[in-house]
Amino acid sequence: MNKIITIGREFGSGGRELGRRLSQELQIAYYDQEIVTEIARRTELSERYIREIEEHQPLLSFPIHVGRSFYPAPNPVWDQRMSVYQEQSSIIREMAEKSDCVIVGRCADHVLRDMAPLRIFVYADMESKIRRCREKAPEGEKLTDKELRQQITAIDKRRAKYYEFFTGKAWSDRLNYDLCINTTQRVIRDMAPVLAKMV
Amino acid sequence: MNKIITIGREFGSGGRELGRRLSQELQIAYYDQEIVTEIARRTELSERYIREIEEHQPLLSFPIHVGRSFYPAPNPVWDQRMSVYQEQSSIIREMAEKSDCVIVGRCADHVLRDMAPLRIFVYADMESKIRRCREKAPEGEKLTDKELRQQITAIDKRRAKYYEFFTGKAWSDRLNYDLCINTTQRVIRDMAPVLAKMV
Repeated sequence: MNKIITIGREFGSGGRELGRRLSQELQIAYYDQEIVTEIARRTELSERYIREIEEHQPLLSFPIHVGRSFYPAPNPVWDQRMSVYQEQSSIIREMAEKSDCVIVGRCADHVLRDMAPLRIFVYADMESKIRRCREKAPEGEKLTDKELRQQITAIDKRRAKYYEFFTGKAWSDRLNYDLCINTTQRVIRDMAPVLAKMV
Repeated sequence: MNKIITIGREFGSGGRELGRRLSQELQIAYYDQEIVTEIARRTELSERYIREIEEHQPLLSFPIHVGRSFYPAPNPVWDQRMSVYQEQSSIIREMAEKSDCVIVGRCADHVLRDMAPLRIFVYADMESKIRRCREKAPEGEKLTDKELRQQITAIDKRRAKYYEFFTGKAWSDRLNYDLCINTTQRVIRDMAPVLAKMV
């Protein structure tokens, strides 16, 4: 069976960078934005629209794992969001079956649970996350610390809802992960080779 | 500066075993019961009594980091518990200054915070913890799953209170640790060499 590593991460924790560098160290595939591109190719939706769907919480407030009999009458937007998630899950499974890989976000730990992936969760304290966001911000963006804190909190809240909706589990529950890594005051570039030795 | 590894752990998660095996892999000192023996030597209290103090929550319900002006009038039992904690902290610092080492429990992550230890937290799901407790139980002990679950929950509750009392921080907050390791359905013997490569 292929070596699959899934990365869940708090916004600004450097989880995406850690995943990318880890894949480079291990010389295995890395999937993140590639998944969006592939969904777009298969569904003829724009990449921007797919990203929007991914980044926003689902329309309904109760989780997908609740019995189907409770669902409201189908509506087109709901159907489209569901089919994007299903397409995404199929793509993730195909990628994981093809070769060893690192997959970032998108409930991949849950989608691939029968393939026993190594499930990593990356987190950091708020100060470190604000600093990382500031370093990676587009030139000219001038958000205050307070605004950045609000943005980080809001994005993580959406991620938690998205995860809970599609998996029925709490995003922040450590039992959903094999390894939780704190990147507070750490340099991701230095962490990846060390982590690669372990996995 | 010495390489210091502190291990916090849920009861039954195999954290103590992981710490011991990790120290063997790295060929560095391991401190656990040794700390109790040393306190006993210095204070003339019995090891059994010290263990009892360590395993039970402090007498007061508000944390030690609250300003001293709120403290009630001193009493002998309270004084003794405080002096055992202080003796313990001194011993932990001495051990950490002497050589590289692994230290299990006893708020060592907090006591040694200015020495930048690698702070590991070990956890597992309840089913795995019950199984581990059953495997390590003294011969003849016949607790039901329900009784074991209650025991595990009660011990972890005490650990959380003890930690919170002396550090002012939440025991289960992942931000207090650099690495949280899930031992659910894992063999500790196999994990230690892998972890040793990383640290």
